[in-house]
Amino acid sequence: MNQYWSRRIQNIVPYTPGEQPKERKFIKLNTNECPYPPSHKVIEAIRAAAGDTLRLYPDPECTELRAAIAKREGLDMGQVFCGNGSDEILAFAFQAFFDSDREVVFPKITYSFYPVYTDFFGLKRREVPMNPDFSDPIDLLCGKNGGVVLANPNAPTGIAVGLGAVEKLLNANPDVVVIVDEAYIDFGADSAVKLIDHYPNLLVVQTASKSRALAGLRVGWAMGNENLISAMRCVRDSINSYTVDRLAQAGAAAAIEDEEYFQSIRRRIMDTRIWAEKTLKGKGFTVLSSQTNFVFVSHPKHTGRELLDGLRNKGILVRWWDKPEIRDWLRISIGTDEEMEALVKALDELI
Amino acid sequence: MNQYWSRRIQNIVPYTPGEQPKERKFIKLNTNECPYPPSHKVIEAIRAAAGDTLRLYPDPECTELRAAIAKREGLDMGQVFCGNGSDEILAFAFQAFFDSDREVVFPKITYSFYPVYTDFFGLKRREVPMNPDFSDPIDLLCGKNGGVVLANPNAPTGIAVGLGAVEKLLNANPDVVVIVDEAYIDFGADSAVKLIDHYPNLLVVQTASKSRALAGLRVGWAMGNENLISAMRCVRDSINSYTVDRLAQAGAAAAIEDEEYFQSIRRRIMDTRIWAEKTLKGKGFTVLSSQTNFVFVSHPKHTGRELLDGLRNKGILVRWWDKPEIRDWLRISIGTDEEMEALVKALDELI
Repeated sequence: MNQYWSRRIQNIVPYTPGEQPKERKFIKLNTNECPYPPSHKVIEAIRAAAGDTLRLYPDPECTELRAAIAKREGLDMGQVFCGNGSDEILAFAFQAFFDSDREVVFPKITYSFYPVYTDFFGLKRREVPMNPDFSDPIDLLCGKNGGVVLANPNAPTGIAVGLGAVEKLLNANPDVVVIVDEAYIDFGADSAVKLIDHYPNLLVVQTASKSRALAGLRVGWAMGNENLISAMRCVRDSINSYTVDRLAQAGAAAAIEDEEYFQSIRRRIMDTRIWAEKTLKGKGFTVLSSQTNFVFVSHPKHTGRELLDGLRNKGILVRWWDKPEIRDWLRISIGTDEEMEALVKALDELI
Repeated sequence: MNQYWSRRIQNIVPYTPGEQPKERKFIKLNTNECPYPPSHKVIEAIRAAAGDTLRLYPDPECTELRAAIAKREGLDMGQVFCGNGSDEILAFAFQAFFDSDREVVFPKITYSFYPVYTDFFGLKRREVPMNPDFSDPIDLLCGKNGGVVLANPNAPTGIAVGLGAVEKLLNANPDVVVIVDEAYIDFGADSAVKLIDHYPNLLVVQTASKSRALAGLRVGWAMGNENLISAMRCVRDSINSYTVDRLAQAGAAAAIEDEEYFQSIRRRIMDTRIWAEKTLKGKGFTVLSSQTNFVFVSHPKHTGRELLDGLRNKGILVRWWDKPEIRDWLRISIGTDEEMEALVKALDELI
């Protein structure tokens, strides 16, 4: 019992973010950041916004940024909500749509922040076992639920489901909100945004952190029916009305508008991923079929922990979880071609 | 009953931020922003940070910014926590320290986000009536409480209490956390930071939005015993590990380090406030004694609403609340000398 701490946090196990090393220079393949810099238009927009107007509060409604997203996605502005990264968006959504007496369901192997949210917000959860091939157990998410969360593509597996599976979930859970977390959608899978006009219970969450190369800027957004977006606003205005600062709004809007640069870097990352998958399979690794900017791999003769530590000693950070189902697996972010060649060389020496 | 909305938000009345006009050019004295731009060192630091490293997550612990604050305040780094504005800091603190079965107490006339937090986080509250002169009812906050929140100086009254009153509160409530919200501390009142080493139940909250001219950057911080700071970290890592982006961390650190500029603008604002208080009193206004960057005023012959609307028609925004105790009052932010002269002229025409 920690004096002064509320009951809410006495026993919570918070999320552990991936290591952000400060001293030594690592090849950083541990947090799914983009290996390429943001568009130069983003930098220009931020530098232009860095001036006297910083003394004024930002636009709480992120009007220009929402307009850029709505235009790109073919939505109305009232169907878009912006926040401080998709983690904040998810935290708001859990508070906006889920109640303590109903079970929130999600796959057992998925983004490790979801169970933290259910614990912290006092919600019940049911974690559904994966299919044997690590794909998402869609049928088992279709029972009587108090809410559904699906990362598509999933992390850390990297596996995506098609829109048919998403529609199945939406139809099977018409009375509750289905959150589709599309943090990695731009690396090959099909976005559920086009379903928004047909399903009032669909909330799609995306981020500028991965395919827009802006993890350091903290911008995420939710897209859905206007009623759901109003609920998100209601949560925000009960916590902190201005979560996206002036520089982040300007930079993210410029990123959304630079479609050409976006296409070029996501294409490069996907090409490198295809090369990495093929190369690692050739070395005897099992590699799940990824539609993300990372690969999830295991080796028949080496534990995940062994490879994690070995790579770290060679100056390469990757991500590993101490969970029974995935203890023998590593999640490796896709870096530049040079970084991935260094990874393959290091693994070669370890196996 | 709004379908899909959680019970938590079905009946909530969220906070209403002050108007941020987009079209017409107003003299903006409604949100207590700084009338002077941020230090040029802040702008330089932001421009330097706006580069390739935006692709990487920010330092979740805000190490350099916390070091700058700790150095200035004579604290250890473990006694400082940074977040996305002091609203986020307060929302985290309400979740970290207050429980649903104990009454959180604060003065009846104070920052209007506090009752929103208690509603939203499912906490009980007791709002204590003000002293007849609108000063804080310190004695009435000293009973058996589940937590205390004191804005010092208070808003919208502008009145500050001395550290003796703060110590009285801390001693009378040893088992619960006392949050001292010092958003306006730099305009003349005495900070409770120097009490931190003596009171394990004291959390002091400050912001870069007012005296550092950085409302648009979203940076606030909490200072207190390491145990309380750990609780704040625990809440953050259960919601969103990275709430302060790379640019905000760099800019705020530069602002904290530019003591000379800080001193010059806070001095200017206080000088203008002294002039405004004297001038408005000379015109027949009642003006509470302010130690902030705003004044709280009323006129014996005109309602608050009348003056609010009249000023708006003349292109000047101020803040008014439709609450019985303060319906005849206006909160007017201190602008530049020119802006305050325009305000006085406009009021002259209205009364």
